[in-house]
Amino acid sequence: MSDLLKNHVAGAWIAGQGAGSALVDPLTGAELARVSSAGLDLPAAFDFARRQGGAALRALSYGQRAATLAATAKLLQANRDAYFEIATANSGTVRNDSAVDIDGAIYTLSQYAKWGAALGDAHALLDGPRMPLAKDGVFGSQHVLTPTRGLALFINAFNFPAWGLWEKAAPALLSGVPVVVKPATATAWLTQRMVADVVDAGLWPAGALSIVCGGSAGLLDALQPFDVLSFTGSAETAATIRRHPAVAERSVRTNIEADSLNSALLLADAAPGSEAFDLLVREVVREMTVKSGQKCTAIRRVFVPEAMVGAVGEAIAGKLARVTVGNPRNESVRMGALVSREQLASVQQGIAALSEQARVVHDGRATPLVDADPAVAACIGPTLLAAHDAQAADRVHAHEVFGPVATLLGYRGIDEALDLIRRGEGSLVASVYGSEPRALADAALALADSHGRVHVVSPEVAGTHSGHGNVMPQSLHGGPGRAGGGEELGGLRALGFYHRRAAVQAGAGVLDQVAAAPWSL
Amino acid sequence: MSDLLKNHVAGAWIAGQGAGSALVDPLTGAELARVSSAGLDLPAAFDFARRQGGAALRALSYGQRAATLAATAKLLQANRDAYFEIATANSGTVRNDSAVDIDGAIYTLSQYAKWGAALGDAHALLDGPRMPLAKDGVFGSQHVLTPTRGLALFINAFNFPAWGLWEKAAPALLSGVPVVVKPATATAWLTQRMVADVVDAGLWPAGALSIVCGGSAGLLDALQPFDVLSFTGSAETAATIRRHPAVAERSVRTNIEADSLNSALLLADAAPGSEAFDLLVREVVREMTVKSGQKCTAIRRVFVPEAMVGAVGEAIAGKLARVTVGNPRNESVRMGALVSREQLASVQQGIAALSEQARVVHDGRATPLVDADPAVAACIGPTLLAAHDAQAADRVHAHEVFGPVATLLGYRGIDEALDLIRRGEGSLVASVYGSEPRALADAALALADSHGRVHVVSPEVAGTHSGHGNVMPQSLHGGPGRAGGGEELGGLRALGFYHRRAAVQAGAGVLDQVAAAPWSL
Repeated sequence: MSDLLKNHVAGAWIAGQGAGSALVDPLTGAELARVSSAGLDLPAAFDFARRQGGAALRALSYGQRAATLAATAKLLQANRDAYFEIATANSGTVRNDSAVDIDGAIYTLSQYAKWGAALGDAHALLDGPRMPLAKDGVFGSQHVLTPTRGLALFINAFNFPAWGLWEKAAPALLSGVPVVVKPATATAWLTQRMVADVVDAGLWPAGALSIVCGGSAGLLDALQPFDVLSFTGSAETAATIRRHPAVAERSVRTNIEADSLNSALLLADAAPGSEAFDLLVREVVREMTVKSGQKCTAIRRVFVPEAMVGAVGEAIAGKLARVTVGNPRNESVRMGALVSREQLASVQQGIAALSEQARVVHDGRATPLVDADPAVAACIGPTLLAAHDAQAADRVHAHEVFGPVATLLGYRGIDEALDLIRRGEGSLVASVYGSEPRALADAALALADSHGRVHVVSPEVAGTHSGHGNVMPQSLHGGPGRAGGGEELGGLRALGFYHRRAAVQAGAGVLDQVAAAPWSL
Repeated sequence: MSDLLKNHVAGAWIAGQGAGSALVDPLTGAELARVSSAGLDLPAAFDFARRQGGAALRALSYGQRAATLAATAKLLQANRDAYFEIATANSGTVRNDSAVDIDGAIYTLSQYAKWGAALGDAHALLDGPRMPLAKDGVFGSQHVLTPTRGLALFINAFNFPAWGLWEKAAPALLSGVPVVVKPATATAWLTQRMVADVVDAGLWPAGALSIVCGGSAGLLDALQPFDVLSFTGSAETAATIRRHPAVAERSVRTNIEADSLNSALLLADAAPGSEAFDLLVREVVREMTVKSGQKCTAIRRVFVPEAMVGAVGEAIAGKLARVTVGNPRNESVRMGALVSREQLASVQQGIAALSEQARVVHDGRATPLVDADPAVAACIGPTLLAAHDAQAADRVHAHEVFGPVATLLGYRGIDEALDLIRRGEGSLVASVYGSEPRALADAALALADSHGRVHVVSPEVAGTHSGHGNVMPQSLHGGPGRAGGGEELGGLRALGFYHRRAAVQAGAGVLDQVAAAPWSL
């Protein structure tokens, strides 16, 4: 039996009780490590994080915490090779796909370090200008943002063990709020190793960064009114979290990122042979294959003018046929494994379900595996479907198949396209492809209220755009409705979740003091 | 039997089925009207509001909607006398207390009309500057705010039938989001009359403003992912709402304002005889008596240096003894009725419960009533208690007695005072009294994370400050934890709840179009 990964709570490393659960290599099925959170005193751990970690973090300025984020990024950079090895073994990802997670984490940390440095010596933030409330101009109102006096609990998804931690932890720690992370069991190893490296380097005060690996029992019970909770995962688990007394009764602030049926939209002017047409084809193929389509932001639905369904399908299928699938250690392989055999089964069931409303244009189930045993490896090739009838294909608009799978849908006019995209009931991201700026802007604005991000690809950004599915820390990440209603990143906007806003109403003499150092900007 | 107040849904006035529930005069018990929502087709009503009301509102600019808010305020102003009559009869409030509700509503509407006018011809709002995402400066990110393509459901409390509607409806309508209001049954008459006046004047497009009087059955079931829900009421009902599938599964965005144990804090330098001491005494008396203490923002806990408990108690009790209580139609009466005999019973039980941990300094239960029958009227005088032991008095920190009741608590040092205030686990407002600007600012900032508003009263604002409990539309209204975690008002900040934020990532040519009229600022 492999070793138990230790938990870090109340400033100490402690193994959970019992045998725990195994983490395996999705290529070989080999056991890599075990995790257990059994027997941990979570209320005491949370109390330590709030009292020791929170107080110590709040004693630092934004600038000091930003400098520690920079040091954290530097440390992770130095240990980067070890993280890639863990990712290959535990996530089954090829080097480029591991980089999306690991280098994405380091980049996001570095950005928050940079933005935080600009906040300087402040310990709280002014929010907007002072507003007069009386005719003499003496009595007025000044809004302020102060860090919440609780902890931030992250319950994370398996697909981003590195980035999923740091994209949340960077704004939390910069805000002065201690972090407790509960990684998804399947890929907890990388998260645990990164936390271990950072904790052991002593970069942060005791209690600032805790990790609980294994089951999530008791985590929500230990939450108190000023704590915040960030969850990334299924809509089903999200509903359970929202019903928990911590949220329903104690008003714990939550940020949820759940299921998302992201779209790509080809505008009518982008005929076959046009640059925009080729840009869509390239992007769909990339989104289907990067991390084997296991990205919350990946394209699931591809909307094209009805007359172009055949041409687009052919072009995408042609590229998918050249994608090699199998052992991520083999340099000829472009796409590695899914995270587990359970996910493989779920993807296969998903393809079967969609197939009843769509024909298979390119069947990844038939792709031969390179250097991998089909009876053991969690591998499957990319699969493109095309809906028989875009309006009637209700499963395509509601069921997220979390793997290398997308469905082509034909539309008859831009209004129908927008309506069909909205059938997703709120998604993380939509991308729009075309060449006419006004038409692209109109489509983007029409999709803005049902998406957290709209990514527009036109010839002027062919070589420079950041990709439909890549989450840039400068931009908001999250989406309404089915996508959970959360908001992450977006530069310093992310700090809002970890701060409380309050209006201070007072005379000018007091408001001058509120605005004076060391308290504010 | 009195008449049924009609509901306004799907652009038509329609009476509910059955006898409904009675609204009564809390002074006399006389029946005034009845309400019923039985038999309404709520899904169809909501669909009409979203499709007809939403589309028509979004077709207008912020400036056009702001002009309609101004017209709405003007219309309400013209009908003001009728509203005061309804308030006297149905809420049992004296003229000054009715004004807090009615004139507060008109003032808030007028403010949003003014702020909205400044947004001009825009149909969506830019959020922050454009950020470059590529080295060539062409590809970048622009955040936008667009109105949500759903409706806003308000489930309101009995204590503010006028302001409670319009403080929410003003930012919703300004945002372009249709409103459905469900007033509390006990005082639904005033809300219904105002909506009737505004609807019948034809100021807003059909479907922009709907009202459902009576039971709330089916309202939440009819909500869809892009709708938003604002609730003001008890923490218990709030928990039920949060567990409903609309919120737990469909990610309906909610704003909740629930229980709040608001505090007043006298700093140590404010000795008896000082101006700050007198300002606290005056404010506590005002907060206990305005609307018979039936304000979510009213002072419930009064923290004073331990040595001053006696002097403060004596000063407050002296003023409370002169407060006349009874029939609001009698000009000698300063404080009218509670909303109902049920509320009276609840307040009496609350006093009894607190009395086990506090002594009664001034007993309002003994106050003789003016022009009112104690066996019928929902009247009670103001009651001040003083806790035996501030730390041990757990009920004082947790149980909101929603009437003219407050408790004095002694503290030994500022840190203990702040800790005791935080025992409320999140409140709407705390007020701080003193004369030294730095000490006042420090206390305000220390309380900012557990309150939506901190109101500082010092001699420089003695004659101009807006009052602990008055909600100014310029300042945030809401509070964390027990207070529900919501955010309302705060000027144009309130529009955020009714908009969705999205990042548009695109080339400069497309972002120029995004920023161009008629779409944005």
